[in-house]
Amino acid sequence: MVQLLKVQNFNVSGDGFGAGVDQSFERPFGHIDPSSMFAWCGATASWPNRTEPGGTRGLDDYFTRDFSHNIGAEIMGRNKFSPHRGPWRDHEWQGWWGDEPPFHTPVFVMTHHERPSFTLSDTTFHFIAADPVTVASRAKEAAAGKDVRLGGGAATIRQFLDADLVDTLHVAVSPDVEIGSGSRLWKSPDELDDRFHHEVVPSPSGVTHHLFWRR
Amino acid sequence: MVQLLKVQNFNVSGDGFGAGVDQSFERPFGHIDPSSMFAWCGATASWPNRTEPGGTRGLDDYFTRDFSHNIGAEIMGRNKFSPHRGPWRDHEWQGWWGDEPPFHTPVFVMTHHERPSFTLSDTTFHFIAADPVTVASRAKEAAAGKDVRLGGGAATIRQFLDADLVDTLHVAVSPDVEIGSGSRLWKSPDELDDRFHHEVVPSPSGVTHHLFWRR
Repeated sequence: MVQLLKVQNFNVSGDGFGAGVDQSFERPFGHIDPSSMFAWCGATASWPNRTEPGGTRGLDDYFTRDFSHNIGAEIMGRNKFSPHRGPWRDHEWQGWWGDEPPFHTPVFVMTHHERPSFTLSDTTFHFIAADPVTVASRAKEAAAGKDVRLGGGAATIRQFLDADLVDTLHVAVSPDVEIGSGSRLWKSPDELDDRFHHEVVPSPSGVTHHLFWRR
Repeated sequence: MVQLLKVQNFNVSGDGFGAGVDQSFERPFGHIDPSSMFAWCGATASWPNRTEPGGTRGLDDYFTRDFSHNIGAEIMGRNKFSPHRGPWRDHEWQGWWGDEPPFHTPVFVMTHHERPSFTLSDTTFHFIAADPVTVASRAKEAAAGKDVRLGGGAATIRQFLDADLVDTLHVAVSPDVEIGSGSRLWKSPDELDDRFHHEVVPSPSGVTHHLFWRR
């Protein structure tokens, strides 16, 4: 089996932003409220944070339940892990996700500021000050033959794309959401077409799924 | 978790047939050659019978790799298991799938003609002369909390639909294939709309995925 490095269920606005500017503890996605961008997965039966039974079982549910399929590790950027910038003042911050993070695998946080690893439930966070090639190698080793999810944000995905380390991408575009400034994945999804096959799948929910895999 | 009874990756022609007439050992799908109906999944990277690396990783690959996701048992009709009709003359026939059947779970064959269970690799076939309610109950018990796949053929799916036992369906329609007579799932996919939500998702490969879940 080929071991893939995959972007999965990454949400961007119609103008290609994954988050706005001025990220803070109160506003993890910056100046914008991204809830409409995530509505498509929250509506599905397989959404892990679902508190009531029900939910849709159409196309969007396939993407939601595929999130953890054969995934053995996640890579994320510092800004996905934390609203803090610069050196850690302390190690109290343990991510946005509470005592039960949704990853259930080792997570490798790419950062200029290392700190000790720690474990919450079945997720262990590691902090690595290294280039994407090194981080990908560490994550693939930890994944033990399974695939590695590249969780974002947009700037981190761009770095891995620039290093030609990404095998597949699934990006959900909310055509009606405009962010204008912040963390941008692309000006247009067609930017990747020279290197990737590219399928565009509109969902009945209104979101458009873009699927890429290497040529 | 709800335990579902699911139809997955069931292929029909544009006129709604899963197979033609005069099934035989040489022609498991009767008078028609169904290979064009199955081409969409055979082209994907996740196709289990793939002999060479490569394959597409777009929309169709999601459906292909979802085939075994959280499945703990399969139910099939006698005519999916075997081209023989009537009482078994002997027990030599062990299905179409060789020594490594693609199910990897208990399989319950609904038939008027019981015979002893047998095991090939990690698949055990059981033969049950009972109504759909009883067969569903046996399969759900064997699935131990996981979902049950209803594998077909079309007549068997119809029986389970008539008994209101089906929770979700994924049916891949090949619009350009006409079969004309044989084992028919529906005259039109809209027949199920009174009982199911129904999404229609055209794939770039040419096949149209129909997704149903209970209202």
